[in-house]
Amino acid sequence: MRMKKLIGIDLGGTTTKFAFLKENGEVEEKWSIPTDSQQEGKNIVPNIIESINQNLSKKGLSSSDFLGIGMGSPGSVDIEKGTVIGAYNLNWKTLQPVKEQIEKGTNIPFYIDNDANVAALGEQWKGAGEGSSNVVFITLGTGVGGGVVAEGNLVHGVGTAGEIGHINVNPNGYQCTCGNIGCLETVASATGVVRLAQDFAKEFDRNSVLKGLINEGQEVTAKTVFDQAKQGDPLAEQVVNKFYFYLGLACSNIANVLSPDAIVIGGGVSAAGEMLVHGVKEYFEKYAFPQVRTSTKIKLAQLGNDAGVIGAGSLVKMNM
Amino acid sequence: MRMKKLIGIDLGGTTTKFAFLKENGEVEEKWSIPTDSQQEGKNIVPNIIESINQNLSKKGLSSSDFLGIGMGSPGSVDIEKGTVIGAYNLNWKTLQPVKEQIEKGTNIPFYIDNDANVAALGEQWKGAGEGSSNVVFITLGTGVGGGVVAEGNLVHGVGTAGEIGHINVNPNGYQCTCGNIGCLETVASATGVVRLAQDFAKEFDRNSVLKGLINEGQEVTAKTVFDQAKQGDPLAEQVVNKFYFYLGLACSNIANVLSPDAIVIGGGVSAAGEMLVHGVKEYFEKYAFPQVRTSTKIKLAQLGNDAGVIGAGSLVKMNM
Repeated sequence: MRMKKLIGIDLGGTTTKFAFLKENGEVEEKWSIPTDSQQEGKNIVPNIIESINQNLSKKGLSSSDFLGIGMGSPGSVDIEKGTVIGAYNLNWKTLQPVKEQIEKGTNIPFYIDNDANVAALGEQWKGAGEGSSNVVFITLGTGVGGGVVAEGNLVHGVGTAGEIGHINVNPNGYQCTCGNIGCLETVASATGVVRLAQDFAKEFDRNSVLKGLINEGQEVTAKTVFDQAKQGDPLAEQVVNKFYFYLGLACSNIANVLSPDAIVIGGGVSAAGEMLVHGVKEYFEKYAFPQVRTSTKIKLAQLGNDAGVIGAGSLVKMNM
Repeated sequence: MRMKKLIGIDLGGTTTKFAFLKENGEVEEKWSIPTDSQQEGKNIVPNIIESINQNLSKKGLSSSDFLGIGMGSPGSVDIEKGTVIGAYNLNWKTLQPVKEQIEKGTNIPFYIDNDANVAALGEQWKGAGEGSSNVVFITLGTGVGGGVVAEGNLVHGVGTAGEIGHINVNPNGYQCTCGNIGCLETVASATGVVRLAQDFAKEFDRNSVLKGLINEGQEVTAKTVFDQAKQGDPLAEQVVNKFYFYLGLACSNIANVLSPDAIVIGGGVSAAGEMLVHGVKEYFEKYAFPQVRTSTKIKLAQLGNDAGVIGAGSLVKMNM
């Protein structure tokens, strides 16, 4: 009997990534198409169906060669009904019956979840959390998102588990877009790091390249801040140290509750690399319960841009 | 065919509670014996075996009438091996092969977990979390403990999940017995509430019955503080408000990560009742992510002293 395959889809605002995977998660084939979010994103799903069918026939494969299609999507996902709403970077403002359309168009069973959950599954299956049944994934991008795998199951709770960006790390902190004060996202996202830099620069009275850039009105990104910290710039060091404190505190609180094998950090800001892991660990170890301190590891994500398509494949396996 | 039954055991420092339960969790029979922690607790397990066998023969039942025995224990529990170590209120300092002894002595399959996890299972099965697959239990006693049920599974993580008392709620707070600074337990346990009262009394310069009691060196307990707050004592109100803030903040952070249907609050301090739930909710709603705020309910535990034996019965069902 021929081994069946999986299809993983990572639906993003500019690109839709696809992969054919073996049942063990090995990527056999990757490709991508632009995401056409014009006209309220009405072409997105038809384009996905067309692209899958094209690649099937190109490889001489048929729907019966596949166990299923998994997809990670932005927006608010109803995993039971297979619908998406409020995915503003796709211009999907109204309810999209994604599962119904894709199953009809491909004749392959379809499963969907939100993109952060799917990336968490990817890292847990084949990335930094491989071999662990308890993994928490944190993605530090424009915002801060996450996903929780506990005892081998993706945790949804009553619908919104994994809102790690909204863990409160400072009740007297900055206003968050969610309406609350002091969420992790306000200080640990790419924009959060820049916010800390601008705020700390005001009070900083020593020599600093970073302060100079800010005062000159030059574009300062999270990468600028981490790069300057690597160079030993004292303001940048102060900023990243505060970032480590907040993220380390949040990680310790997650680990005290869930005792995961690993907390995996991904997303654009994690490009700062081992320096970031080292800094976060320092505060994690300060605030984590003694037994948790040694049993939960802080790790960098390993799959990069492939986390989405691989996790989407895992979604199929989880639902079988 | 006769329906099989369950045996639940709640092993405590002074009393060991037992129950025969129907498979649906209904308690058919309850009894208890004193826990004999003398001589390094060497009689504890033999006494349990004797008590079970006595009650079996009294009811004309045999080991084959039971699916299993579940037990909640203090100390550090190895759920795979069925052993307990470091249960200091039982004087169990060395490794106790509890499962091996009880299975040999009763000929009934035996399952064990720590007492807070077992109480969480009880509340999730037949108490305030009944019907929910996602429930977090917090017990406010001498310390603060907890248990997490996510997607229907008790979460152990790599061993120490549910250390809710060690969630950090104030990085500049009080020293905790665990060695860290600012753990929830330092302010939300029975002793934590008294610590807050004594600390706040120092700075408090208005009329207050509670301040009078503290100044006179009278015994002040968490109950005194909550009772005085109910009477409108201004210092007591300030103390419980701070307690609500810390517990509400911790609950919001748990809920942002896990999105449980309910966070169930039990233990001695929860005797303060609906007043406590109301106070905690105020801060929970302030710090929880908007969608979490309405979907996660803060509830009082419902099973009281029966949570342990009922949860222990649930442990049998979970392991079948």
